[in-house]
Amino acid sequence: MMYVTQGLKRAANTNGNAIATIYLDRTKTWKDLRNRVAKMASSLQALGLKKNDKVAILSLNNDRYLELFFSVPWAGQVVVPMNTRLALPEMEYIIEHSDAQVLCVDDQFKDAAIALQKHIPMLQHLVWIGEGLCPEGFHDMEDLIRKHDPIPDEEHGGGDVYGLFYTGGTTGKAKGVMLTHDNIVSNAMVVIPPVDYNRHTRYLHAAPMFHAADCGSTFAVTIMGGSHTFMPKFHPVHLLEQIEEQKVTATMLVPTMLNMVANVPHLSQYKLSNLKELIYGASPMPVPLIEKLIKLFPRQRFTQCLGMTEMAPVITCLFPDRHVLEGEYAGKLGSVGQETLTSEVRIVNSEGKDQPVGEVGELWVRGPMMMKGYWKNPEETERTLEGGWLHTGDCGYFDEDNFIFLVDRKKDMIISGGENVFSLEVENVLFQHPDIQECAVIGVPDEEWGERVHAVVVPKAKKELSADELIDYCRGKIAGYKVPRSVTFRDTALPLSGAGKVLKTELRKEYQETSVVGV
Amino acid sequence: MMYVTQGLKRAANTNGNAIATIYLDRTKTWKDLRNRVAKMASSLQALGLKKNDKVAILSLNNDRYLELFFSVPWAGQVVVPMNTRLALPEMEYIIEHSDAQVLCVDDQFKDAAIALQKHIPMLQHLVWIGEGLCPEGFHDMEDLIRKHDPIPDEEHGGGDVYGLFYTGGTTGKAKGVMLTHDNIVSNAMVVIPPVDYNRHTRYLHAAPMFHAADCGSTFAVTIMGGSHTFMPKFHPVHLLEQIEEQKVTATMLVPTMLNMVANVPHLSQYKLSNLKELIYGASPMPVPLIEKLIKLFPRQRFTQCLGMTEMAPVITCLFPDRHVLEGEYAGKLGSVGQETLTSEVRIVNSEGKDQPVGEVGELWVRGPMMMKGYWKNPEETERTLEGGWLHTGDCGYFDEDNFIFLVDRKKDMIISGGENVFSLEVENVLFQHPDIQECAVIGVPDEEWGERVHAVVVPKAKKELSADELIDYCRGKIAGYKVPRSVTFRDTALPLSGAGKVLKTELRKEYQETSVVGV
Repeated sequence: MMYVTQGLKRAANTNGNAIATIYLDRTKTWKDLRNRVAKMASSLQALGLKKNDKVAILSLNNDRYLELFFSVPWAGQVVVPMNTRLALPEMEYIIEHSDAQVLCVDDQFKDAAIALQKHIPMLQHLVWIGEGLCPEGFHDMEDLIRKHDPIPDEEHGGGDVYGLFYTGGTTGKAKGVMLTHDNIVSNAMVVIPPVDYNRHTRYLHAAPMFHAADCGSTFAVTIMGGSHTFMPKFHPVHLLEQIEEQKVTATMLVPTMLNMVANVPHLSQYKLSNLKELIYGASPMPVPLIEKLIKLFPRQRFTQCLGMTEMAPVITCLFPDRHVLEGEYAGKLGSVGQETLTSEVRIVNSEGKDQPVGEVGELWVRGPMMMKGYWKNPEETERTLEGGWLHTGDCGYFDEDNFIFLVDRKKDMIISGGENVFSLEVENVLFQHPDIQECAVIGVPDEEWGERVHAVVVPKAKKELSADELIDYCRGKIAGYKVPRSVTFRDTALPLSGAGKVLKTELRKEYQETSVVGV
Repeated sequence: MMYVTQGLKRAANTNGNAIATIYLDRTKTWKDLRNRVAKMASSLQALGLKKNDKVAILSLNNDRYLELFFSVPWAGQVVVPMNTRLALPEMEYIIEHSDAQVLCVDDQFKDAAIALQKHIPMLQHLVWIGEGLCPEGFHDMEDLIRKHDPIPDEEHGGGDVYGLFYTGGTTGKAKGVMLTHDNIVSNAMVVIPPVDYNRHTRYLHAAPMFHAADCGSTFAVTIMGGSHTFMPKFHPVHLLEQIEEQKVTATMLVPTMLNMVANVPHLSQYKLSNLKELIYGASPMPVPLIEKLIKLFPRQRFTQCLGMTEMAPVITCLFPDRHVLEGEYAGKLGSVGQETLTSEVRIVNSEGKDQPVGEVGELWVRGPMMMKGYWKNPEETERTLEGGWLHTGDCGYFDEDNFIFLVDRKKDMIISGGENVFSLEVENVLFQHPDIQECAVIGVPDEEWGERVHAVVVPKAKKELSADELIDYCRGKIAGYKVPRSVTFRDTALPLSGAGKVLKTELRKEYQETSVVGV
């Protein structure tokens, strides 16, 4: 049996006096953490929670968040880490749908918590994990820990559900992905070798901790007895400062964040000699950006983990030794890599048959990290896991070396004049333009073509760009039918999901009516 | 689900054109191997084998042995890797007990195979995996592969039994350890990070492939897409030559083998620049020997894996960064390390309660690599896995840093005058004597003391030693009651099990009557 709290106990046994967490002025060892977790677990039981009851967490990144990741299963319950970008009705939906009886929040979500409790009779307890004074009507986490004696681990594990990870909440009805203890630990075990997590690792949680992309490292770092530091709100300059000050060795960033880091002025001023591992994933990485990053960070190793919450989350991995600009192992920077150590990937056509090399199809994956299913949603579970493979909704192809190249989300693919256009390919071309800060390519309704390739572009500060100029720029670089037929410029950042993915559904809504037709 | 052939398929997908195996004049790529395995699997089904039927292998190390490790589960069957040191009646017992219908042998075991088939009606097929001409009455493996088309993988996996690994066959009635696919892959996953197996690994099978100690690396190297080379009969000089010639990067050796290597004259003449990882385990490592080895191999990293077939096999691991003579991480060379990444270890007293730091008790372990049980032996299974923990029969203690120090096998512990004497401790002292090549300490019946501490010593060539001298040598280094009271000298090597462990049961039989009482 594999179970998540075993990793915490291993850290306490093998590296007990070493630092486990650093946040603000607080530093805790792994022995401290084990002790606090065993006490917090006791308090959860004292609140009346039984085996498999749900404990929701709605908070920016901090050390107590990590402690809850272990306290909840230690007490035999299930975590529900919540997306911090949601609107109140979306939060309400998740708490009700998950049957959460406890909600843990930090300062940021005090008012939301109070409002939610008013509406949801089942939500009995609010737990305060913030920095300010504990508000009335909340249990203070520090108080709970102080008042309770440690209890033995309930050893919730194996095929038991560790957590409900809601996904898609910003684009429709959120689905609660049931990840078991076996799923979570299996994922950790495939992440450790490429990223070389070890007991000297200091990992910075810069991406949101509720999200599977960050979680994928949370348990890997813990098993190895490494240490955790936390950044509640991402800012590229603060990130660099924190890496320097706290001697961070590894962090996981989404491409959007890495793009911001790459654009920080005077990047070479920061002392990043401790930083060894940069992990990225959660959304497609433009080739020009990763090429630029490799040059900007010559001493760091890059690992790409293509993930999906339903796979806990790593689907494919591009190992560090493929992140090179020259030599025998070069040429794979546009790829999301290959299957993880214990999983399998297929690319299949609409009949579910394997596609030959170079032919686009849907990615199907399976492995010990594949979710148990969607909570209270057997139909969607059945559809997504049909035949024992997770149907990812990502489209891509294998090259002759069995590397996977993604072309688009199935639902983001543009069909223009009968031709398939993959937005990623067009974005990769636009992204090479020196004056473009951000861009996204979507399909918008078009009378003549059915759908039309449309680009939404954020120019760099003080740069003037025209639609004609960009359309010209694309010509010759890609086939004519792929070249954007219209462009909109905006001076605000593109809308992002909690995980930093560009929300194309929002863009489609926004631009399908108003887009300016170019040439 | 995890399954062993997934690792082979991953190697073929991710490193398909790279070398998989090198043996004699044969070199095969991972794509070759996958293809051969899929054909060999077809032939096993053509022989009439059904799901979960047993295929025994009795052979010295070679490339076909590795292919069978994958062909058999690909066809849905179960491997039975047999100890090559057994006497014919012991082999007969295992084949009958396991219900094996096929036996695969190399040149060494041709006659044994013919004899076994005569006695065992169920044993229907002999398969030839040797180098000489295929004998009459045998199926030739190369022929079988030539004549059959590849079949799809049966995907035998998860909790299905991958193999029956018979253990204890040299010291009593052999027990068939049922290791599942999940057990085997879970073990591989905890071995990869400390040893840093990767796709550039070239692993030399120097310890016997039937044994779990070598198997522990077999699947780890495969998952990573590394390559395998083979040594049918261990010889320290040939080992060094093979490492040099084949650019071996990693190998697993038992302490007895490492001791022989350390005593090879002109060791520094060998070019071992490719060799990076030395793994050892399967029997206790004397501290003076590992200290000597660290000095002899300054550029290599050492990893100790304490193993037991029942744990597929790794129980504890001493990481490379603990293999230092000085500095912050020194002082743990006498330890077998700590729990693996996904397992747990306890040290308990005779009532099954955890012992405090420093107190000797029995090691209990559990984790996803814990065997399903003993084949056809529910009583022994129940006894060994009582309470969900594997009772190892090893005695040891935790130090203040939670490192485990073994003192003895429960059954090898000597009780002399009411005091417990741990043979390992006495052996460690004797081993420091410059004229001793090998030694083992056992308890022999004694009228006065119940048991008496007795040393069996093999002096180095041309060295004269006396019992009095050695007894004197031990005085002051360990408590008086631990000092050997009698010594026997022999000029032949100590009897070893197939895994290279000193067979103390044999020594006890041999010496309890004849031992010469010293002072």
